[in-house]
Amino acid sequence: MKTAPLTLYGYWRSSAAYRLRIALNLKGLDYEQVAVNLKAGEQTTEAWLAQQPQGLVPVLKHGSQALVQSPAIVEWIEETWPEPALLPSAPADRAIVRGWAAVIGCDIHPLQNLRVLKAAAALDGQGMDSMKAWAQRWMVPGLRALNDMVRTAKRPGDFLWGEHPGLAEVYLVPQLYNARRWGVDVEEFPTLLAADIAARALPAFIDAAPENQPDAEAG
Amino acid sequence: MKTAPLTLYGYWRSSAAYRLRIALNLKGLDYEQVAVNLKAGEQTTEAWLAQQPQGLVPVLKHGSQALVQSPAIVEWIEETWPEPALLPSAPADRAIVRGWAAVIGCDIHPLQNLRVLKAAAALDGQGMDSMKAWAQRWMVPGLRALNDMVRTAKRPGDFLWGEHPGLAEVYLVPQLYNARRWGVDVEEFPTLLAADIAARALPAFIDAAPENQPDAEAG
Repeated sequence: MKTAPLTLYGYWRSSAAYRLRIALNLKGLDYEQVAVNLKAGEQTTEAWLAQQPQGLVPVLKHGSQALVQSPAIVEWIEETWPEPALLPSAPADRAIVRGWAAVIGCDIHPLQNLRVLKAAAALDGQGMDSMKAWAQRWMVPGLRALNDMVRTAKRPGDFLWGEHPGLAEVYLVPQLYNARRWGVDVEEFPTLLAADIAARALPAFIDAAPENQPDAEAG
Repeated sequence: MKTAPLTLYGYWRSSAAYRLRIALNLKGLDYEQVAVNLKAGEQTTEAWLAQQPQGLVPVLKHGSQALVQSPAIVEWIEETWPEPALLPSAPADRAIVRGWAAVIGCDIHPLQNLRVLKAAAALDGQGMDSMKAWAQRWMVPGLRALNDMVRTAKRPGDFLWGEHPGLAEVYLVPQLYNARRWGVDVEEFPTLLAADIAARALPAFIDAAPENQPDAEAG
């Protein structure tokens, strides 16, 4: 099973696809990438919906199995290829790190996803200004709370849980990418920012960055 | 460690607290409940923010450790008390069930949380009508997609993954509670509804139901 080829269906700017690129790179796994052009609406075709009925990316194919939902896929990657570990080993520690990931994955990112920004903008009709205001509204207090949580619980080292990047950075780096994109001042979150900077200096993160993907567009 | 007392800080109508009540009950664990009155703003006090800087419930205390974020806490419960299992044993199967949970936990529930409904209503100023429209906008297609995913992958039995309720029902039952509350016609999702009905007949789910909590209010 472990030798079946891996194919990641994603989009260069999708945070959830970005998470999976980081996780796969940290594990040193080879994978093929197939771009699903969200701007061209490729996620709404019948063929795509047959794989992912929500009409979202990413999907990770492993042989004949098509896995959906980045939080579930990251756990699958961790269980299938345990080294290097993305999570600490003690359950109580794993709960802390998974909690940080969930702050981003459940309470920040879903609210600033493009489909939600568009829906919010449609309510008050202010276009990009509405989208920016809505994105910042959830990102700023969410990241502020996460920075507080992390500051008191982090382990010594360059990363949120010590000397090596792991699940926390899998979620953090794409979220701070989005924060910058929507004009959030990330200097307000120094503990998060330090780990983000340390992570983005590593090949696993450089190779996963949106601008370095084959389907990346200028601007 | 396993014998330290468990205390769940929650609110009767919080979906995330409801998930934890179900998970704890399915494991047969004893726990004390402390109500955080969200209507009275108790989640915004300095004392609460010191425990949960996001100002959200639930928090599960286990001895001196305060765990946050229901997805992380459910995984911790599963790792700490493996039986009866909430997840299947094979990684590929775990990924399927965790994917279903994430559809609810990341793509449906966060968008219909009360803080988000209030923000959406503030944009177009239509009060309860806005809240209902916004809640339905995300719940209906999300649950429709989940029903499709589950229908093709479910295992034979009364529940989404076979003969026993597990992680899927931990997320599903609170989400369908919310769906009914916001006027969604749940008959549209027959595969989900069948598992929901089977689950709600069990003591673990009956005891976890919002209306059966000490802090429940009428209406």
